[in-house]
Amino acid sequence: MLNVAIIGATGYTGLELARLLSAHPKVKISALTSESKAGMSYSQCFPAFKNKLDLELEALNPDTIAKKASLVFLCLPHQEAMEAAKDFLARGCRVIDLSADFRLSAAEVYEAWYGPHRCHDLLKEAAYGLPELHREQIKKARLIANPGCYPTSCILGLAPLIKGKWIDLKTIHCDAKSGVSGAGKKADPSILFCEVHEGVKAYKVGQHRHTPEIEQEISRLAGEKVMVSFTPHLIPMDRGILSTLYAQTIRPTDLKILHRLYEDFYKEEPFVRIRPSGEFPDTRDVRFTNYCDIGVHFDDRTGRVVIVSVIDNLTKGASGQAVQNMNLMMGFNETEGLDSTAPLP
Amino acid sequence: MLNVAIIGATGYTGLELARLLSAHPKVKISALTSESKAGMSYSQCFPAFKNKLDLELEALNPDTIAKKASLVFLCLPHQEAMEAAKDFLARGCRVIDLSADFRLSAAEVYEAWYGPHRCHDLLKEAAYGLPELHREQIKKARLIANPGCYPTSCILGLAPLIKGKWIDLKTIHCDAKSGVSGAGKKADPSILFCEVHEGVKAYKVGQHRHTPEIEQEISRLAGEKVMVSFTPHLIPMDRGILSTLYAQTIRPTDLKILHRLYEDFYKEEPFVRIRPSGEFPDTRDVRFTNYCDIGVHFDDRTGRVVIVSVIDNLTKGASGQAVQNMNLMMGFNETEGLDSTAPLP
Amino acid sequence: MLNVAIIGATGYTGLELARLLSAHPKVKISALTSESKAGMSYSQCFPAFKNKLDLELEALNPDTIAKKASLVFLCLPHQEAMEAAKDFLARGCRVIDLSADFRLSAAEVYEAWYGPHRCHDLLKEAAYGLPELHREQIKKARLIANPGCYPTSCILGLAPLIKGKWIDLKTIHCDAKSGVSGAGKKADPSILFCEVHEGVKAYKVGQHRHTPEIEQEISRLAGEKVMVSFTPHLIPMDRGILSTLYAQTIRPTDLKILHRLYEDFYKEEPFVRIRPSGEFPDTRDVRFTNYCDIGVHFDDRTGRVVIVSVIDNLTKGASGQAVQNMNLMMGFNETEGLDSTAPLP
Amino acid sequence: MLNVAIIGATGYTGLELARLLSAHPKVKISALTSESKAGMSYSQCFPAFKNKLDLELEALNPDTIAKKASLVFLCLPHQEAMEAAKDFLARGCRVIDLSADFRLSAAEVYEAWYGPHRCHDLLKEAAYGLPELHREQIKKARLIANPGCYPTSCILGLAPLIKGKWIDLKTIHCDAKSGVSGAGKKADPSILFCEVHEGVKAYKVGQHRHTPEIEQEISRLAGEKVMVSFTPHLIPMDRGILSTLYAQTIRPTDLKILHRLYEDFYKEEPFVRIRPSGEFPDTRDVRFTNYCDIGVHFDDRTGRVVIVSVIDNLTKGASGQAVQNMNLMMGFNETEGLDSTAPLP
Repeated sequence: MLNVAIIGATGYTGLELARLLSAHPKVKISALTSESKAGMSYSQCFPAFKNKLDLELEALNPDTIAKKASLVFLCLPHQEAMEAAKDFLARGCRVIDLSADFRLSAAEVYEAWYGPHRCHDLLKEAAYGLPELHREQIKKARLIANPGCYPTSCILGLAPLIKGKWIDLKTIHCDAKSGVSGAGKKADPSILFCEVHEGVKAYKVGQHRHTPEIEQEISRLAGEKVMVSFTPHLIPMDRGILSTLYAQTIRPTDLKILHRLYEDFYKEEPFVRIRPSGEFPDTRDVRFTNYCDIGVHFDDRTGRVVIVSVIDNLTKGASGQAVQNMNLMMGFNETEGLDSTAPLP
Repeated sequence: MLNVAIIGATGYTGLELARLLSAHPKVKISALTSESKAGMSYSQCFPAFKNKLDLELEALNPDTIAKKASLVFLCLPHQEAMEAAKDFLARGCRVIDLSADFRLSAAEVYEAWYGPHRCHDLLKEAAYGLPELHREQIKKARLIANPGCYPTSCILGLAPLIKGKWIDLKTIHCDAKSGVSGAGKKADPSILFCEVHEGVKAYKVGQHRHTPEIEQEISRLAGEKVMVSFTPHLIPMDRGILSTLYAQTIRPTDLKILHRLYEDFYKEEPFVRIRPSGEFPDTRDVRFTNYCDIGVHFDDRTGRVVIVSVIDNLTKGASGQAVQNMNLMMGFNETEGLDSTAPLP
Repeated sequence: MLNVAIIGATGYTGLELARLLSAHPKVKISALTSESKAGMSYSQCFPAFKNKLDLELEALNPDTIAKKASLVFLCLPHQEAMEAAKDFLARGCRVIDLSADFRLSAAEVYEAWYGPHRCHDLLKEAAYGLPELHREQIKKARLIANPGCYPTSCILGLAPLIKGKWIDLKTIHCDAKSGVSGAGKKADPSILFCEVHEGVKAYKVGQHRHTPEIEQEISRLAGEKVMVSFTPHLIPMDRGILSTLYAQTIRPTDLKILHRLYEDFYKEEPFVRIRPSGEFPDTRDVRFTNYCDIGVHFDDRTGRVVIVSVIDNLTKGASGQAVQNMNLMMGFNETEGLDSTAPLP
Repeated sequence: MLNVAIIGATGYTGLELARLLSAHPKVKISALTSESKAGMSYSQCFPAFKNKLDLELEALNPDTIAKKASLVFLCLPHQEAMEAAKDFLARGCRVIDLSADFRLSAAEVYEAWYGPHRCHDLLKEAAYGLPELHREQIKKARLIANPGCYPTSCILGLAPLIKGKWIDLKTIHCDAKSGVSGAGKKADPSILFCEVHEGVKAYKVGQHRHTPEIEQEISRLAGEKVMVSFTPHLIPMDRGILSTLYAQTIRPTDLKILHRLYEDFYKEEPFVRIRPSGEFPDTRDVRFTNYCDIGVHFDDRTGRVVIVSVIDNLTKGASGQAVQNMNLMMGFNETEGLDSTAPLP
């Protein structure tokens, strides 16, 4: 059994890791940290875990934890994660960081969007943990930069078009809709039930910090610098991201060709499912699972392709993908512990 | 007092008209029709209306109703409304049709999207009931084609850019998100609570029948034929449409210029409110009201403008706009009966 | 025009008062206070009010405000309201207090449930603002203790049975279900969207502070001390309270008799509507309105009566009732400004 | 591997069985039936099952299915299930019936609430599938009457009090709140999203068909005929039932005693969890799981006990309990395939 620790176990990504890892056949959760709840058992804090995960929460102490765990998941805020990563790597642990601290390989880009970066060397070492694009690098990595939720859905949705050079790189629009859990569990009046229920809004229009992350990966695929429009919206539901992706094609094509492009691109992927022609996914189809489901449309009136990509923001968009990365790093079956089906309804 | 009738009073647009008109100071509701509920009082069917609107529902008989009402609102399905309109006009009534039957002035376009049109002459006569663009024509009309919900939010959001010739007409994307009431009140399993709650999906991608309506009005404004991408999405809430509108600008500009463009364009309009620079509306801000609230963003990295336009799909997107049209036709104050504030929360 | 002030205008009861009073034909809002938002206009804080209520928020200063307003609504936390009431009464204003500070006429009961009371004399003077039971006293009052939301629905639901001496006073159960806005607008993680959506829970079982308020009024009606079981539940919706009320009858009866009892008891009341026999209200029927709708059931198997009583917790359960009280105090028509119909859906 | 069939696989209980059984380590789903979707694969109908359960749906033919499956789950409407059960038993299959057809052991009670019963002999044979009360009988049964959702939550919540003779049997009140999935997946306008969202209502007050089922089991436990008040309410959420249960105690007691009563009663039960004193469960804690979580309160003012019992109506309230029953019948570990933790949020 692999001993793992969840650093910051009481937020939403920590909770989702706890749910997934406590059922993972090859893993033992040997430490859970929380500054505010240290001393309480996990199931005292979250009665849903009673008889499932009764371990006591402890304060973060890298020395203690590195003795108990050989792999740690960091569910810390941006800016705090980078030094924790350094501490654990120095003590011989592997690290999967769910924050943004190692996602942007160019320090200056990180600093423009997030603030100072104090571990430049690790920036270079970190593998961007999107297995569908970086599987081999992930397998060998000590440090994983687990992708953002919006980037996961947008990059997976756009990759076949970019790789296949089907679209005008100046015409990419990403219109994304997210459930509220993406905002985390913080005492912020703007995400109170009565402030988001029965409403939809766009936020951080043209300014969301996932923009450079999407652009980094799209640019890598394209082999040139690409900019996209990215607009996130808040939807009154707990979980799920649906990204509607638009681009202008640059040579004659049709739906059949583009649909096959997607099927071929992802045919070996265990967690990407392409919908039949004419069908589009609902976020409910992937809820609580590690799937990314994708629908493909070609509008021959305008020559535009429209892609609809859905994930669960806390699973494939965060903790599920982290477990997938762990599986790859440890040589486990990639789908181990990630094989549930979305409940309906 | 103006005597009016609501034809098809038990669906969602009928209910919203009943709510608005029963509180309108210059109107008396003198007839309500329903085939399935004829003989019941309105408040028996809808106890919320007890002591407000207790009138008995009757079957649709143009002769009887034309004697009681000088203006009729048609809340009938597409294809049924056209002949009802003809019947009431022939009996001297004014008609505001909330269906799509008279929205597309070219019969061949209507027929391509909806089916045969049997009242071609009236197609020419009908005024497209978007007061912000067609106020003078509406004032003189006998027959109003009340706009669709999505077109209302998209056209109002795009009009200043089109009129001002600020954008490349080949780059318009309309990504729209609607509450479930837009689907009407029909026994369709796909809109059961448990089929839409906790999920988001795109539907009729590239095929929604509001596309030609948006294109008709945008083309009129542009003075040339324009095509747009239009993707509707279903959101787990009762009411509201948020349209995120994207286009590439064709000459140097900045947010200040574009924001002022919107403020100037709508400065005399009682029902369009432009948000301050940097702010974007929530559908909750216009819920149950006739407002269209608009936020403006310019992305100088890509040269694209991003507009966020919100309405209540049943009010400004249907019945509220119908009342606004009635006010214009009858010479009432345009905001009469439409002056409520969205409740928060 | 009556000049009024809303003290604490940015919470949910303040917002609902702002909505109702800004549309009231006999009222002018002349002051709005907020400590944290002083200096901003109301519509800057709440864009839904743009063009409706653009007045600037100010810090609470009784001297300044008493010059501008002859009646003030207090939307302050318990314990803070009592001294504000005293201050405004001393300056000649009438006061409608939406907190609990003057609801419990026995100081010792208040102190057992809420903390020290520092204005005992005013406790005696205050009228309990439930017009259906205390209309004459309200008309003459300087100070109104506006009832709690749960008590309003429970007391109105039970009053005919108590007055008519139909039930065993030792068998009263009040099982109440409330939307989340009842918890107010505070940065409390337990009312985040993701903490209450898709769940129901009971809270403060046997310990909710509305218990003594229900018991006070029921005891007054009964002429003897009565205790009830009161269990509140949190429901994933914005607004509404549904109270299911149970009691054992003490002499032979039937549904017809009990239904008529309710119809007769409330036949002159503008804001209480009794459903036909066999029908029960939905909170949606009274949403955003000042109605209390009631359904009556008699179970002849067990001899128990079951009453279902619904209100909107922010309207009849708070701000709407406050406006009703103002209308009575000022000699306005009791329903003035409160005549809207619940929107459906 | 045990070969099983789901008869009526496209409704909500069928879907939940498909989810649970497709992940069960000792089971192979060998047949799925649907009259309307026969010929389609399960994952064509429900894309969430792609790569999980791609089996083709077939029409119901007992001969064919009995060859493929040795245990069948019946997810058919009441009145249809009884004959299907007979057919499968005659062909040597074990049967777990999720309808009400065999829940009421007295034919005349069934007939008073549901209609004619055409398999009286099987009524006697069927085991009432609530393992916490009837485990030994279930182990030996050929035919299981899987309990209703409301009865499961109410009976488990009341059993310790009844068995321990702590309460006055004439004072039991069951106030239950259910998510919308309990109404099934049928084209019924009253459960459209826009008809239930943002509202709560009571329904079938005093007339719900789960009443005699609760009374049957409570009476068995009490050893005498007991009647209860049972009021179900519809809550705007997908899943979950919370039952608040009230009764008058008949001898001196306190919270500590009653809390221990519950802990002792259920101490060996894998799927019943008692909350610590002073804590009460949320339906979210058991969502998608087979748990019943219970909170205990004693009100010493009134001498009443208040129990809060939560389940997922589709899991412990239907399909999860059916799997638990299958595990018992087949000698599998009782929790096999039922060990997931509720996702938060």
